[in-house]
Amino acid sequence: MTGPPADVAAARRQVRRALGGLARGSLVLVGCSGGADSLALAGATAFAAPRMGLRAGAVTVDHGLQAGSADRAAAVAATLRGLGLDPVDTVAVRVGRAGGPEAAARHARYSALDSAADRHGAAAVLLGHTRDDQAETVLLGLARGSGARSLAGMAPGGDRYLRPFLGLSRASVREACRRMGLDPWSDPHNTDPAYARSRVRHNALPALEEALGPGITEALARTAGLLRDDADALDAWARRAAAEAEAGPGELDVRVLGGLPRAVRTRVLRGAALAAGCPAGDLTAGHVGELDRLVTDWRGQAEVHLPGARRARRTGGRIAIAP
Amino acid sequence: MTGPPADVAAARRQVRRALGGLARGSLVLVGCSGGADSLALAGATAFAAPRMGLRAGAVTVDHGLQAGSADRAAAVAATLRGLGLDPVDTVAVRVGRAGGPEAAARHARYSALDSAADRHGAAAVLLGHTRDDQAETVLLGLARGSGARSLAGMAPGGDRYLRPFLGLSRASVREACRRMGLDPWSDPHNTDPAYARSRVRHNALPALEEALGPGITEALARTAGLLRDDADALDAWARRAAAEAEAGPGELDVRVLGGLPRAVRTRVLRGAALAAGCPAGDLTAGHVGELDRLVTDWRGQAEVHLPGARRARRTGGRIAIAP
Repeated sequence: MTGPPADVAAARRQVRRALGGLARGSLVLVGCSGGADSLALAGATAFAAPRMGLRAGAVTVDHGLQAGSADRAAAVAATLRGLGLDPVDTVAVRVGRAGGPEAAARHARYSALDSAADRHGAAAVLLGHTRDDQAETVLLGLARGSGARSLAGMAPGGDRYLRPFLGLSRASVREACRRMGLDPWSDPHNTDPAYARSRVRHNALPALEEALGPGITEALARTAGLLRDDADALDAWARRAAAEAEAGPGELDVRVLGGLPRAVRTRVLRGAALAAGCPAGDLTAGHVGELDRLVTDWRGQAEVHLPGARRARRTGGRIAIAP
Repeated sequence: MTGPPADVAAARRQVRRALGGLARGSLVLVGCSGGADSLALAGATAFAAPRMGLRAGAVTVDHGLQAGSADRAAAVAATLRGLGLDPVDTVAVRVGRAGGPEAAARHARYSALDSAADRHGAAAVLLGHTRDDQAETVLLGLARGSGARSLAGMAPGGDRYLRPFLGLSRASVREACRRMGLDPWSDPHNTDPAYARSRVRHNALPALEEALGPGITEALARTAGLLRDDADALDAWARRAAAEAEAGPGELDVRVLGGLPRAVRTRVLRGAALAAGCPAGDLTAGHVGELDRLVTDWRGQAEVHLPGARRARRTGGRIAIAP
């Protein structure tokens, strides 16, 4: 007797690992677009979950962005039911415009998945992101230039979302899909150069690979994991430091701040600015740098103006951020 | 009266900032290949240093890798003397092979600069790296995938080497060179696709810019600075943690290690492996991950084999790394 093909076995193994911590009888939902990655995930989960005493369902989201999308969602749902998944929800969403087309679609999709998970009392939602998706996410984060957290990519777990395939290559997952006999749908957005992710996938990553060698995708994915750990540790340190530096409501003690390494101090200052009401999207590294100079380069300068009409001033060895 | 052109003024300003901390009468040496960036640095330093009560000289390194390189080095030295720099040393080096051609040339160059600085008692050595060089260094570091330190790029200062132009674009520095009336040499290695840096400069970075927008070079350089701060802070934490975890000569207390965030714990374990004699170049994230499992995923596993014929074992709540 021969086992399943290697890529199918690898996909199932990753799903088993990801589901290992769940209580028997729990329901897990697979988020499935009908593309090869999430279809392979649905197939692997339909196989693995019942053998672990878990129930497995799926959700497919109709973004309504292309003609015939409702029919396609219905066809995907039929495939998912055919795999034995239950329940299978088809959710139509309305994609807004905030943050650009990719961010808006992502926001609508996660909202729909969250609602479905709440509705069914699911213990986890599984997503089909691969190591290649992770590498692309790191490069997209590089463009922001805002440090470790923006390079940390997607989490393998830690909240309700699990990404069992984050350690597998897209090629392996697609081969698994094929070997499971599933017929995937190719989203034309994935090759549309109007989308930054598509440009990264089809142009930037191949150019990087050409320049730096074939290991770049793995290196990027590994970087994401390491920087995620770094960001977690530094955020924890910053939370402790912020508590120690608190010198009154919304006030920080300059002497405590001055004793911190810059990576921690700037995180404390950023956190204080957010707590004081500065909008996260508008607060740049430049603003945080100006706040930092109130600590490290104090020459009696005037108050620092921050987004959200907040102002930071230093008086009597304290920094206060307020309207 | 009009001042100097904007790019010349910016170059001089950056040099003044970099030299701000040096004692009057100190000597600074400019490392100059004759290329536009380091030639502009020589010109800006020849202008700024005497006005700050500093002496300024230069070193040009003849790598001996191209026909006529000795003549070229002599011509560069003559230009540097013409700028009023004194002393001006021409140092011929022999480039080995260890680590590949780029690493070997870099090693020979820094050795020559170090020797010249020692010989003349220089307080600092100035290098002409620009923001674009920094961005390229970050991308080259990405290929290693070994975390924050490999993405931290080059330091603006902190040891004897100062890089005043790290915040300036290559275009600005080259324009400054031109406006100073200096005639730079173009190193053919900079456009030779046999070199990874050249491939990054001429192919990978333009492709990234095409995919992600024109701010990518600045974003990469900003990333380097932020991750350098992160790495410094986490290394400091790891040093404290290692001291706390020490349970005997070369032994670490598992309970202390278990209470640390992974980013810190893996740094402590990596440091312990290096201290026990594992060669840094051979110790991978995979090895450190195996060490980490002795702490976090202990099932009585056998000892972990490490490069340099070292072995790690866990006994009685302690981890020891030894031959």
